[in-house]
Amino acid sequence: MNTMITKLDSSQADFKQRLDTLLAFEASTDDAIESAVSAILADVRKRGDAAVLEYTNKFDRLQNGPSGAAASMAALEVSQDELRAALAAIPEKQRAALEVAAQRIRAFHERQKQELNGFSYTEPDGTVLGQRVTPLDRVGIYVPGGKAAYPSSVLMNAIPAHVAGVGEIIMVVPTPDGVKNQMVLAAAAIAGVTRVITIGGAQAVAALAYGTATIQPVDKIVGPGNAYVAAAKRRVFGVVGIDMIAGPSEILIVCDGSTDPDWVAMDLFSQAEHDELAQAILLCPDADYIARVEASIEKLLPTMPRQEVIKISLGDRGALIKVRDMDEACAIANSIAAEHLEISAVEPQQWADKIRHAGAMFLGRFSSESLGDYCCGPNHVLPTSRTARFSSPLGVYDFQKRSSVIMVSEAGAQTLGKVAAELAYGEGLQAHARSAELRLK
Amino acid sequence: MNTMITKLDSSQADFKQRLDTLLAFEASTDDAIESAVSAILADVRKRGDAAVLEYTNKFDRLQNGPSGAAASMAALEVSQDELRAALAAIPEKQRAALEVAAQRIRAFHERQKQELNGFSYTEPDGTVLGQRVTPLDRVGIYVPGGKAAYPSSVLMNAIPAHVAGVGEIIMVVPTPDGVKNQMVLAAAAIAGVTRVITIGGAQAVAALAYGTATIQPVDKIVGPGNAYVAAAKRRVFGVVGIDMIAGPSEILIVCDGSTDPDWVAMDLFSQAEHDELAQAILLCPDADYIARVEASIEKLLPTMPRQEVIKISLGDRGALIKVRDMDEACAIANSIAAEHLEISAVEPQQWADKIRHAGAMFLGRFSSESLGDYCCGPNHVLPTSRTARFSSPLGVYDFQKRSSVIMVSEAGAQTLGKVAAELAYGEGLQAHARSAELRLK
Repeated sequence: MNTMITKLDSSQADFKQRLDTLLAFEASTDDAIESAVSAILADVRKRGDAAVLEYTNKFDRLQNGPSGAAASMAALEVSQDELRAALAAIPEKQRAALEVAAQRIRAFHERQKQELNGFSYTEPDGTVLGQRVTPLDRVGIYVPGGKAAYPSSVLMNAIPAHVAGVGEIIMVVPTPDGVKNQMVLAAAAIAGVTRVITIGGAQAVAALAYGTATIQPVDKIVGPGNAYVAAAKRRVFGVVGIDMIAGPSEILIVCDGSTDPDWVAMDLFSQAEHDELAQAILLCPDADYIARVEASIEKLLPTMPRQEVIKISLGDRGALIKVRDMDEACAIANSIAAEHLEISAVEPQQWADKIRHAGAMFLGRFSSESLGDYCCGPNHVLPTSRTARFSSPLGVYDFQKRSSVIMVSEAGAQTLGKVAAELAYGEGLQAHARSAELRLK
Repeated sequence: MNTMITKLDSSQADFKQRLDTLLAFEASTDDAIESAVSAILADVRKRGDAAVLEYTNKFDRLQNGPSGAAASMAALEVSQDELRAALAAIPEKQRAALEVAAQRIRAFHERQKQELNGFSYTEPDGTVLGQRVTPLDRVGIYVPGGKAAYPSSVLMNAIPAHVAGVGEIIMVVPTPDGVKNQMVLAAAAIAGVTRVITIGGAQAVAALAYGTATIQPVDKIVGPGNAYVAAAKRRVFGVVGIDMIAGPSEILIVCDGSTDPDWVAMDLFSQAEHDELAQAILLCPDADYIARVEASIEKLLPTMPRQEVIKISLGDRGALIKVRDMDEACAIANSIAAEHLEISAVEPQQWADKIRHAGAMFLGRFSSESLGDYCCGPNHVLPTSRTARFSSPLGVYDFQKRSSVIMVSEAGAQTLGKVAAELAYGEGLQAHARSAELRLK
């Protein structure tokens, strides 16, 4: 089984161009999806619950499920009792793992919250300036259903909102053929979710954004979804906030050649198994080591249940790249700005200090990305497709916003008023100027 | 001169519906603009500087200007010497006002920067978790040209980027008919801008996002612009970060009836004079006071140079609203989530404590919005159209991003590895599980 993974060398004359080609990814827009989503959004906005109910019965084929087609929105709501029952019903080891993960994610995000408290200061003339930080009132968490239903995503999306102090967290999750994922419901039970409604697709996004008789409109919608969900989120952006629309998942491993090559091969697989578009790249200055990793890939691939996906992903979008030295590896890592960056090296901190752009950095050979995906504590929702150059992991700050506070004293109005009036007249905005001047004695 | 401003009373049976109608605003999308912008973006991406130069000569009619049509991109660049010369050439009072404003804006934004330092903590087993905060490498600041060229916008957009530590700040500003606004150049001179290029429109956004031979691609583009600029920013979002696409400007004044009604009338004007779509609303429990504000509006409007704009804006989108009491005013203010909220009251803090959603709060009768627009220090780029429910003023944090840092110890990998493997198997991601298990002893 040959993976045909691309091999590059940074000393090649056309290396930069070949790397750019490898990294290039543009989300395609599908006109059929766009027009379907546009119609669903307009319909839910107009008809509310009735439309949501119809689409849900139809797209999720609820008539095939254990409870049959839903007769009302109430039938689509999962009670807190049912969530607790799911948590009690899953295997003990799963429950314990979910609880450890949740506790660790909560602890990390509490640190994020502590960092952002707002501030206020008083100037000599009594003018007070400040910044207030407040949580959002109500957010929607989209959780995919069916095969890609990940309880870890429930924890990673809901816990930061809960820690931020969001008043109401409404989780939506489709149940294709009426089948509920018990581990997803169990995760909701421990993540602080307020309501769970078994709806999905563009209809769920529309219900959250515009509100219906049974669902209060939210202020922000986060969480991954298929192409319909992504298109719907783009369209309601502005009415509500959204998180970033994620591209394919990526791992970049910078290795000094000191890590067991099987470990590195498996770390590449752990990204490649997500889907055919996932990207797994190794940067290493040691050609012999790269050959050993390649041998590990060939050896281990046949043992993987998801080997077909891994093979396509590594073959189409993966690469093993020989670099001049670790410094060059760090420079290339900065240009790639990967979602996940593993620095698998003996003294990783020296290289980490040279990294400016990455969603999450995993330092040292014991820090496999998969630990971070589930239970280290930091969020696994990370910027993809080079957006780590300008954006951040999902965090408590995504569920808070800031307001400026300005309280000008009478004395302050005298000095500030003259400055403001001068600039306002310069910009031709006379009412601005007069408004400042009226406060002058 | 009758402004025909809408008058509402919160005790009306259909009050909520009437308020919703008043607040409703949907940015229209214009197919002609969309297709023009799409073509310009593709052309600049393909032909680079040559395309930028052509569009600039054409759209900005440079052949009419003092220097004629530009022969190269170099001719469109404003040197640091020319920026300094502009600062030296503007009237002394303007220069002093710009410098005071810049100094105060810088001081406020330095406080923002101090708040966000990242963190790191070590767990008992030696595992280190943290969050690193780093500035963006390179940003683009869009500054409108022509009549709406505001030096204050240069300060408000560039200074936070400079304080954040952004390496390169590239300002673009169109010069219709080849005319440069000296106050805008002077503001660039004191705001820490790295380069100024006299280009605008979708072609400038494309050059910043994709890069050309003379302009390195940026990581984020901020700043206001016309419909072409807004459409271009939306389209390059993802390739680069963008700030929010701003809607019409808004002021909401909550007044207890204790402020000189002329002051409140002028504060309403100062928003209304921006453009016909701007929104200015007063909430007050005192019907007599509202009548006095209305009289002030009628009295003062004829004195305003921009009275035609003010009259349309107040008539179409303004309102004087009688409320039951100040508590109800605060509740309505939360539902409006205004860009600018003035609490013009004797003891404003008691009401401010009840406000959850506002871009900026101006407390007390001396805190006119116009002071904040120019020189209090907090940013004047604020969330509009109810987006203050989930977003924040432009700030230093918009020019920084966070990266998670995870360094798992060998001991940590033993406990975390079992938790991760359990959850990964539960999600059907075996390579994730194996990657964790390989680190177990």
